[in-house]
Amino acid sequence: MTRVGVVGAGMIGRDHVRRLTSVISRVTVTAVADVDAGAAALVAASTGAAVHPDGLAVIAAADVDAVVVCSWGDTHEEYVLAAIAAGKPVFCEKPLATSPQACLRIVEAEAARGTRLVQVGYMRRYDAAYRALKKVLDSGAIGAPLMMHCAHRNAAVPDFYRPENIITDTAVHEIDMVRWMFGTEITAVRVLRPRASRNAGAIPDPLLLVLELANEVLVDVEISVNARYGYDIRGEILGENGTAALGDQNPITVRRAGHLTSPVPADWRERFGPAYDVELREWVAGHMPDAPGAWDGYAASVVSDAAVQSLRTGERVPITLAARPKLH
Amino acid sequence: MTRVGVVGAGMIGRDHVRRLTSVISRVTVTAVADVDAGAAALVAASTGAAVHPDGLAVIAAADVDAVVVCSWGDTHEEYVLAAIAAGKPVFCEKPLATSPQACLRIVEAEAARGTRLVQVGYMRRYDAAYRALKKVLDSGAIGAPLMMHCAHRNAAVPDFYRPENIITDTAVHEIDMVRWMFGTEITAVRVLRPRASRNAGAIPDPLLLVLELANEVLVDVEISVNARYGYDIRGEILGENGTAALGDQNPITVRRAGHLTSPVPADWRERFGPAYDVELREWVAGHMPDAPGAWDGYAASVVSDAAVQSLRTGERVPITLAARPKLH
Amino acid sequence: MTRVGVVGAGMIGRDHVRRLTSVISRVTVTAVADVDAGAAALVAASTGAAVHPDGLAVIAAADVDAVVVCSWGDTHEEYVLAAIAAGKPVFCEKPLATSPQACLRIVEAEAARGTRLVQVGYMRRYDAAYRALKKVLDSGAIGAPLMMHCAHRNAAVPDFYRPENIITDTAVHEIDMVRWMFGTEITAVRVLRPRASRNAGAIPDPLLLVLELANEVLVDVEISVNARYGYDIRGEILGENGTAALGDQNPITVRRAGHLTSPVPADWRERFGPAYDVELREWVAGHMPDAPGAWDGYAASVVSDAAVQSLRTGERVPITLAARPKLH
Amino acid sequence: MTRVGVVGAGMIGRDHVRRLTSVISRVTVTAVADVDAGAAALVAASTGAAVHPDGLAVIAAADVDAVVVCSWGDTHEEYVLAAIAAGKPVFCEKPLATSPQACLRIVEAEAARGTRLVQVGYMRRYDAAYRALKKVLDSGAIGAPLMMHCAHRNAAVPDFYRPENIITDTAVHEIDMVRWMFGTEITAVRVLRPRASRNAGAIPDPLLLVLELANEVLVDVEISVNARYGYDIRGEILGENGTAALGDQNPITVRRAGHLTSPVPADWRERFGPAYDVELREWVAGHMPDAPGAWDGYAASVVSDAAVQSLRTGERVPITLAARPKLH
Repeated sequence: MTRVGVVGAGMIGRDHVRRLTSVISRVTVTAVADVDAGAAALVAASTGAAVHPDGLAVIAAADVDAVVVCSWGDTHEEYVLAAIAAGKPVFCEKPLATSPQACLRIVEAEAARGTRLVQVGYMRRYDAAYRALKKVLDSGAIGAPLMMHCAHRNAAVPDFYRPENIITDTAVHEIDMVRWMFGTEITAVRVLRPRASRNAGAIPDPLLLVLELANEVLVDVEISVNARYGYDIRGEILGENGTAALGDQNPITVRRAGHLTSPVPADWRERFGPAYDVELREWVAGHMPDAPGAWDGYAASVVSDAAVQSLRTGERVPITLAARPKLH
Repeated sequence: MTRVGVVGAGMIGRDHVRRLTSVISRVTVTAVADVDAGAAALVAASTGAAVHPDGLAVIAAADVDAVVVCSWGDTHEEYVLAAIAAGKPVFCEKPLATSPQACLRIVEAEAARGTRLVQVGYMRRYDAAYRALKKVLDSGAIGAPLMMHCAHRNAAVPDFYRPENIITDTAVHEIDMVRWMFGTEITAVRVLRPRASRNAGAIPDPLLLVLELANEVLVDVEISVNARYGYDIRGEILGENGTAALGDQNPITVRRAGHLTSPVPADWRERFGPAYDVELREWVAGHMPDAPGAWDGYAASVVSDAAVQSLRTGERVPITLAARPKLH
Repeated sequence: MTRVGVVGAGMIGRDHVRRLTSVISRVTVTAVADVDAGAAALVAASTGAAVHPDGLAVIAAADVDAVVVCSWGDTHEEYVLAAIAAGKPVFCEKPLATSPQACLRIVEAEAARGTRLVQVGYMRRYDAAYRALKKVLDSGAIGAPLMMHCAHRNAAVPDFYRPENIITDTAVHEIDMVRWMFGTEITAVRVLRPRASRNAGAIPDPLLLVLELANEVLVDVEISVNARYGYDIRGEILGENGTAALGDQNPITVRRAGHLTSPVPADWRERFGPAYDVELREWVAGHMPDAPGAWDGYAASVVSDAAVQSLRTGERVPITLAARPKLH
Repeated sequence: MTRVGVVGAGMIGRDHVRRLTSVISRVTVTAVADVDAGAAALVAASTGAAVHPDGLAVIAAADVDAVVVCSWGDTHEEYVLAAIAAGKPVFCEKPLATSPQACLRIVEAEAARGTRLVQVGYMRRYDAAYRALKKVLDSGAIGAPLMMHCAHRNAAVPDFYRPENIITDTAVHEIDMVRWMFGTEITAVRVLRPRASRNAGAIPDPLLLVLELANEVLVDVEISVNARYGYDIRGEILGENGTAALGDQNPITVRRAGHLTSPVPADWRERFGPAYDVELREWVAGHMPDAPGAWDGYAASVVSDAAVQSLRTGERVPITLAARPKLH
């Protein structure tokens, strides 16, 4: 039975707690902290976890074997570094930290410690359809990859969204997925601005990201965050001998009034709910070979920063990463 | 934390134990018995459960709150009746018992006890696609139902399959699904024999079942148990104003060598794995309103018997059920 | 340039005239007759064809090389026999004649003449999707056929529809298709009555036809003639090693308001328009090996009669055909 | 009966002659010319057309009402101008002429003549699926358009292909389609080079074109001309409230050996054959409102030139068109 301490008991933290207590076996939540005492108390009431004064106390607690960090992004660096120092596995919601430099400090601390302790919450890698897509690609069935076309559409986004959130909160999932899918780094990014949707208020939406990879594969990614009609995730890889694409997973089709109709997921919970479950289950069970680690959190941060810059300037932005530690 | 005792530690029993310990929260396996001491020992080793001399001892154990029965069908009646007598919830793998009479004795014992304790392992009701189908039907979107077309195809079946197993082990899932989908009873059944597949050895395969329902809906069900190409489950309901059908849930599509291709599930584990998880999770969480109970086990048994008779004679067989107790 | 005489200038006759003059090359309409002089005059005006006093005069005309018969079914026998006597190819809209006996007289007249002159208007054989389906079946890719599931749904039917029209005007297309698809005869038919749609007025709709073939393949056919939502034609063949089915030919898919939607054809013109064009084009170009001939018209008539009988009695009706002349 | 003169009797010319004589009504081919006397003789033999010494003689012939130009691109300007001078409708295969300047001379000559006589062979506008897509867009069902994603994949291309042919012979179809779909002009183009396929020899393949439209819609177009697996044409429009996409038009689906499979068209003949028929049929019947005219041939030429320049430099190339004459 793994004993987990939870740092941050907001919406996403409570959702992870629900997952840890209702969906995943052999795990118990023993400690919790939040700047909002009421939120921490809610988790304590539903799990029996002890409320601690702050995240560092949770990480230090004797009855905590592993840590889940769901606090505000600004605090991630401190808590993840503390978990590394304590030698405890830590699952950190995205972003790993709020700047490439902070991410790099985590990468280096983990490397200095000499063992992999950090997982970042990029859950695409745990989605059955993406895994099937990668399996086909890796099998060689479609030949060497040349391009990938992606689209990420949200029906709507929260009011707090600013232009850069389209990159750092939304497109970042595609950025991590692309790095994992092709097993290589992104070397340049360009962000193009189509006609803006009047559903999007003041933010530029949709965007088209063009990602260049170290293996010369070119990836274009449409990001729409006010697409209205539903949540829709697409991906098609063009290989030298064929293509592989995410399928339409329609549970049912209805024929009525002159049309054949099937539902589109309403939001990411519906589309990726099972992937979140698998993500945390595999984390509790032990690090998987392709779990997103500190290096992945760092690389995503660098690419996001470059994309935000390109969004502002309209120019192609080349990307340079630090030297990758042996551990990763 | 629900403490579960497991009666029968064969393949299906061990699979349920894995589910109870790896996939479902707030449950622990505390007791186990099997006529094969080695099988029971395996479960004990992986869970810490105590090995009991027989199923009755498991049911009687003080640290057992609820019982899972996975022993041979012939023993189900005895164990389920014992669980009822002990007032403990019991999850019984199909069939509930091996004759309509035995099933009826269970129905009556439960009714006499006055509380619902029995759930039978018909997991279609927990499949997301069937639930979505039923939701559309119940919404009235396609109008009153008139017909349903079903197909159930296995790539292959075990060597022990005899002609009647096509009904009692395979078609019985469709029989339960139809009763649940339309919320009514089956009043007659006819089994037609198409040309037999040479892949099927001596058994008549495929079959076409024609089910008549109390609401005059007509259901045809193709059962193929040596379809070779994969595991394939279909269902389409024709209503007065439209149709609703199970969709193709393709995780990916590959285009290669002149064809667009997507995978077909290999077996029921792949197609219905999540439904088995949900089934047992909801059982542990407490009886759902539409969980398959003792009455459903009885009705399935009566319809199966009639279908076996029709398979032998080629004639339409009318169905009469006992009076339904108030409890159900 | 083939010179065609048209007997019967009603709706279907005028549609064939439009096809002969606007869609098909190397053909001209030179003669026309109709009991309604106005209808004949319309065709004459649009084509320059001469109006003749009756169908026999059209058939006898020196400037008529081939005949299209679109008059009322009761008159078909007389005109087709006259065309055979004149040695002129004749395209006869379904039915070939209104009784098996009349059809058989045509079969025998053509056999006596010793050359194939008759084509009946079963256009499924000219549909690209059915042809692709037959090609897969004949290739052996799915192994020997065991069953076929079909559905034929009309959004609505004309007011003149009586119960038997569901068989003789609608199901007859499926009957011809099945005979052609499997290259064998139907040996028995049974018609089952599901719950009747309240959209269908006094006629029993939908129906389920169960057809037994000489090769033991079993075919079930749903016929719905008031399905409301559109025109929908389905067919799936189960073979020993796989299945082949008509595809969904969606020109476009729209995602809007939570749904993915594609259109369903409104009627048979939309679904089978190109097949009608090909049918008449191939007829003008010369008889194809698998064109539906007099024997096919006769067999369809016999099976339809048996199905109408089964619709009345609810019983399975065995089918016996006359000896097939060498010519066919 | 329209009497057509054909200038150029190569492969495409003979295919149009076949269409004019076998597929389309009310038209006859009366004159033909080709620099290869044998090719002209072939057409004469199959149609009875008179062989003329050159294209100008065909255009001038008294028994020629309308002209089809299928000669080499370098000769198009001369023949199209001659047809305009003769006041005869002319269908010119793409390109209208081999430079923007030459195209503009045609535009101006037609404008001076004051009547529309020129149609260019962009047949996408006659494809049922593209028309359905445009109809949905124009209906407002998906709201104002923001982006379009396209892909054009050929299994292979002829040996003569040079890098610029990917633009001028292949991508030009997408360029015309985009202008027609959105009813606006392309204002800039950028061509990106992904990793090159080893199936493509020395030419850069695939390419990604990014087209900017006057209404700010952004269009990305993948062009692959050695995609091996088949001929595949995609298009999806993202609107403010939904999306509309070309559908998969699968005539059949086969389930076999663990997979669901449907065919991909082998080449453009299979995918667009009916569109070519409709294109020429509508041309014979008279100019349609949205037929591609001289202005469209000019605009396509300008955009193609800019795309070729971008392919060479890697830079975004802005596009400026001449003033559009009133006639267009």
